Amino acid sequence: MSKNFKSRYFEDYSLNEEIKHSVPRTITEGDISIYLSTTGSRFPLNYSAIFSKDVGFNKTPVDDILSFHLVFGRTVPDLSLNAIANLGYAGVIFNKPAYVGDTLTASSKVIGLKENSNGKTGTVYVKSIGKNQNGEIVLTYFRWLMMRKKKEGMIKSFKSFVPDLPTKVETSDFMIPKNLKLENWSSDVSGSPFFFDDYKEGEEIHHLDGQTIEEAEHQLATRLYQNNARVHFNNHIEKDGRFGKRIIYGGYIISLARAISCNGLANTFKIAAIHSGKHSSPTFSGDTIYVWSKIIKKEKLTNNLGTMMIRTLASKNNSEMVFPDKKNLKENIVLDIEYSVLIPVKEK
Amino acid sequence: MSKNFKSRYFEDYSLNEEIKHSVPRTITEGDISIYLSTTGSRFPLNYSAIFSKDVGFNKTPVDDILSFHLVFGRTVPDLSLNAIANLGYAGVIFNKPAYVGDTLTASSKVIGLKENSNGKTGTVYVKSIGKNQNGEIVLTYFRWLMMRKKKEGMIKSFKSFVPDLPTKVETSDFMIPKNLKLENWSSDVSGSPFFFDDYKEGEEIHHLDGQTIEEAEHQLATRLYQNNARVHFNNHIEKDGRFGKRIIYGGYIISLARAISCNGLANTFKIAAIHSGKHSSPTFSGDTIYVWSKIIKKEKLTNNLGTMMIRTLASKNNSEMVFPDKKNLKENIVLDIEYSVLIPVKEK
Amino acid sequence: MSKNFKSRYFEDYSLNEEIKHSVPRTITEGDISIYLSTTGSRFPLNYSAIFSKDVGFNKTPVDDILSFHLVFGRTVPDLSLNAIANLGYAGVIFNKPAYVGDTLTASSKVIGLKENSNGKTGTVYVKSIGKNQNGEIVLTYFRWLMMRKKKEGMIKSFKSFVPDLPTKVETSDFMIPKNLKLENWSSDVSGSPFFFDDYKEGEEIHHLDGQTIEEAEHQLATRLYQNNARVHFNNHIEKDGRFGKRIIYGGYIISLARAISCNGLANTFKIAAIHSGKHSSPTFSGDTIYVWSKIIKKEKLTNNLGTMMIRTLASKNNSEMVFPDKKNLKENIVLDIEYSVLIPVKEK
Repeated sequence: MSKNFKSRYFEDYSLNEEIKHSVPRTITEGDISIYLSTTGSRFPLNYSAIFSKDVGFNKTPVDDILSFHLVFGRTVPDLSLNAIANLGYAGVIFNKPAYVGDTLTASSKVIGLKENSNGKTGTVYVKSIGKNQNGEIVLTYFRWLMMRKKKEGMIKSFKSFVPDLPTKVETSDFMIPKNLKLENWSSDVSGSPFFFDDYKEGEEIHHLDGQTIEEAEHQLATRLYQNNARVHFNNHIEKDGRFGKRIIYGGYIISLARAISCNGLANTFKIAAIHSGKHSSPTFSGDTIYVWSKIIKKEKLTNNLGTMMIRTLASKNNSEMVFPDKKNLKENIVLDIEYSVLIPVKEK
Repeated sequence: MSKNFKSRYFEDYSLNEEIKHSVPRTITEGDISIYLSTTGSRFPLNYSAIFSKDVGFNKTPVDDILSFHLVFGRTVPDLSLNAIANLGYAGVIFNKPAYVGDTLTASSKVIGLKENSNGKTGTVYVKSIGKNQNGEIVLTYFRWLMMRKKKEGMIKSFKSFVPDLPTKVETSDFMIPKNLKLENWSSDVSGSPFFFDDYKEGEEIHHLDGQTIEEAEHQLATRLYQNNARVHFNNHIEKDGRFGKRIIYGGYIISLARAISCNGLANTFKIAAIHSGKHSSPTFSGDTIYVWSKIIKKEKLTNNLGTMMIRTLASKNNSEMVFPDKKNLKENIVLDIEYSVLIPVKEK
Repeated sequence: MSKNFKSRYFEDYSLNEEIKHSVPRTITEGDISIYLSTTGSRFPLNYSAIFSKDVGFNKTPVDDILSFHLVFGRTVPDLSLNAIANLGYAGVIFNKPAYVGDTLTASSKVIGLKENSNGKTGTVYVKSIGKNQNGEIVLTYFRWLMMRKKKEGMIKSFKSFVPDLPTKVETSDFMIPKNLKLENWSSDVSGSPFFFDDYKEGEEIHHLDGQTIEEAEHQLATRLYQNNARVHFNNHIEKDGRFGKRIIYGGYIISLARAISCNGLANTFKIAAIHSGKHSSPTFSGDTIYVWSKIIKKEKLTNNLGTMMIRTLASKNNSEMVFPDKKNLKENIVLDIEYSVLIPVKEK
């Protein structure tokens, strides 16, 4: 029997099956620095031990998107290696923050299976869960992928089941960190004078700071998450593949989008949920990423804490943006994501 | 009101104004390793916990130039984004070393403002200060920049004020680490048998180890410092810009120069001050950096500790050097810096 | 006297001389993360604090190959700078694991010197030892290098001495970690159901996951180890050199080979010894590395622990392999290494 791991094909998943993903991962100080080095984030909560204590955290929380990638990385061998496309994310809920020293594990439940009429592929729907060493849930999300079949043709008496995926996470499902001391929040620390009260629904923000991605950068970032999907790393194969080159892990674009959006959203200190996310076009080494956001909806949670639902678009090699309809994304739009952030209502 | 941060133009600075820079930064073990990975430094004081204790430090001090970059990175959004040129540094004094776990903050005072006769630009002079979480000064420096104006033309009744900048830091202003145990210093540890007594004023040293810079390397280093000046990261814009490509953060060249100079100056364990520094030409990905030093002046501080003033030049793509006059730097000289180091007088 | 370090030539070594290598190096959490980022390893013992405790380690041990590179990096200034070729390794024994916080030092003993008949070069044989801050041996190895002579011609009355190098490390010389709790080993953690009992002597494994190397990646990795051999970093010289470009540190290929081989050998948690290793061809930026292994020999050590001797080959830009005779390696084979690993006998 072959000892290497060829991963699963569509036929290898069963409805309601639970997959325990291997290779638990302890977060180190090195991970934090490499995340910084590959994204340039300036959100102070994640990089200042003093400030994170001041505002009510016992330890400096890990950037939410880094936690996501570390959980996602666990799932790759079981879910992504034979996937043709990552069709989307939905319902990402960030529960308990992760911290340096935490060990993350992941599992996924197969919640839907749909055969495609071409007989070559099927869609696999999963709910994935990332936990820390105490069994506490760090984050959960839904994801669906187009998966290769081992054998061409329709499967005899197969019943497709398409789950009802949430189109948005309810505000009541947001996990608000306890013991927040927002009276210690300061625009001097974040660098931005704009709080919940200063944003308007419908407002658009151009985040300005385009970043050009090098091959080494996305490879370093993606390996940090132990995401080993081959399309990101093997130019010898990919040069003859669909795009003629390596494809950048879509999650790296989410990281860049969040980091770049700090310029305009610096007080949005925490992501409560990602409602939906779509990598609408692939990204390659040499592409320059620009980012825009639109405030979709505002909601006050407490006297001093608000949440904003934001749509963020990332483009490649295009520094101008008219916010398009979701179904009418031009080719140079590479990411369309809707998420909700936490933000102090106003400066104390 | 636009939520993104467009930074300041010449007209936005007032004489004697104090600017508190945002985004305090906690130093991690990851930062130390990335600094090593992007420079190749071999100075043992900064990378050996045993040795740094042996010679009198409670903890391993952070490389002085890394501390400088972390402080400098804080100042970028308020000072560098609309700067056309970083005209120079002077009077950099390294006070208290920084350590892993320290949280650095920075502030700057506007000490001079000079309108240029072209009506398009002005020079802003600042004194910047970096402090740790206890309010102790880690380093201070003077810097002056050529800044764009928002509006062309001379400003009505504007009075230029050009400050007297120090041409050198006085030896009496050097902060000498307390409790040094130089009797434990060893050439076996540093790899060099050359101490204060072995160098001569006027002596020239070729540091030999040329290093070729890749785009990913300077971007990773510069993001580590959270320096977000756009010219370093955005090829989509810079390909049509002044040089047709991204420009490397000048401070990265200082780091390389210091790291490369270890081969010839391995016992110069600490930088006491940088008297002046000039990025005389820009550097780009693909350039190979070579470094030379000249001992300008020697001074004994105690029985077993000396200081040497050194002029260090870095060139690109040129492995031969005749030490030129300061005002006659050829195009391939990219850095001209004068600084003072601490060095044991002789092997115990 | 020139202050820079020009390293040694063949004539500068004496038989039985002990060389203490400089620049002790404290291992940090950052090193672990950069190692991950530059290799993509998925061996859980080295990256999960929980799992390493569960199976009997007090702290998470550092990847054996990273320890090797950190020790090797110490030796470079004294051994590699004027070497024309690293002819081989033998008898690498991994004694005590290294941990974050350990400070590694290295020394080498010259155990053989052979003049070559061309009068231009000689072979230097060393035994190198890496120790931690308590003087405990972390690893030892034999290595031989072809070294330039300062002066052409045969040395008068020179007696060559070629040492008897071990062709393999005896199993009785393996250091088995004490207090292993292999009853806690789990295929859920490693991701592989294959244990000692599942492999057959003669079995071949294709490790599948080709990785393309970027210039920045090998430079970052090699600087992390403070390996400053110029051929890896200076394109300004190497563009006119033997290959017309920078040469990748061979050790980086060993790291990639070990990391890639996790796909097929995930339960081989520790390298006990490297019997022999040969960089049969140079590797360059842009090359894609593929890896194959063959189980040479199996030996049960205790009821629940076995060892397997493995031959691993790495190729560049070639995804097909017929295991060749050792003396008949085609040009695209870049590494041929024989080593022994520890592996639980079967799932509890």
